[in-house]
Amino acid sequence: MENFNMKYMEKALFLAKKAADADEVPIGAVIIQNEKVIAEAYNQRERLKNPLAHAEILAIEQASRFLQNWRLTNCLLVVTLEPCMMCLAAIQQSRIQEVVYGAKDPKGGALSLGYRLHEDLRSNHRFEVRHEDFLECGQILTQFFAQKRR
Amino acid sequence: MENFNMKYMEKALFLAKKAADADEVPIGAVIIQNEKVIAEAYNQRERLKNPLAHAEILAIEQASRFLQNWRLTNCLLVVTLEPCMMCLAAIQQSRIQEVVYGAKDPKGGALSLGYRLHEDLRSNHRFEVRHEDFLECGQILTQFFAQKRR
Repeated sequence: MENFNMKYMEKALFLAKKAADADEVPIGAVIIQNEKVIAEAYNQRERLKNPLAHAEILAIEQASRFLQNWRLTNCLLVVTLEPCMMCLAAIQQSRIQEVVYGAKDPKGGALSLGYRLHEDLRSNHRFEVRHEDFLECGQILTQFFAQKRR
Repeated sequence: MENFNMKYMEKALFLAKKAADADEVPIGAVIIQNEKVIAEAYNQRERLKNPLAHAEILAIEQASRFLQNWRLTNCLLVVTLEPCMMCLAAIQQSRIQEVVYGAKDPKGGALSLGYRLHEDLRSNHRFEVRHEDFLECGQILTQFFAQKRR
């Protein structure tokens, strides 16, 4: 199994900053296999005019292209914000083994809303989802929305 | 609001047959706006080597490209099989107004598993999901898997 390392979260945060620069909600994600980053993406919903273009979804697509396989076996996904229900379910579909997120999303996060899909015993793929508090992951979002309101 | 018409389900079923011909799990989907089919897709998870390439996801991406907008306002999605959790959540993200599906999926369908995301009062987009029994939508899947086991 992949070991989580704070440097992956720093990389995801760097990608979130690129999203902010592009006037997108700043969320970044990386996928790691055998200690190698095989996908890096940030939210691009506005630019791509695609409701599915969340950081996690783009990272999953990138990793699948890289591995030439829809099964992302033994992969770790690190993302700056708690995944929404769509992304949590997409992670399940892709057979990712573990997820680490940096900031909680009380309003839109699947776990915060009580959807514990990753632990559903009826599912054919269960996986671990873990919160590693990383202050800047939340701060960059707060700053982005504060600026938008101005 | 769009009115559901059985011809949309027939179109979705036609697409599911194309999936079967390509040796993909036969599921088809169409998206309708103002009585016009603006997207038609079928499951291509194997060919595209993409865990997200379910019929609904591909149809949503196609409709977004067509409308040049991530918000699929006033749209109806018609799909041969009950959506999984990922697709139900993707439909929510895309602001689709109504979903009609032709066959229940007791093992993988979001509603069958008790995830009633579309009715979640905490969500900023709620929508209707309806089952219109259409025998052939289930039959084509049963046949596909029976053939696979042989």
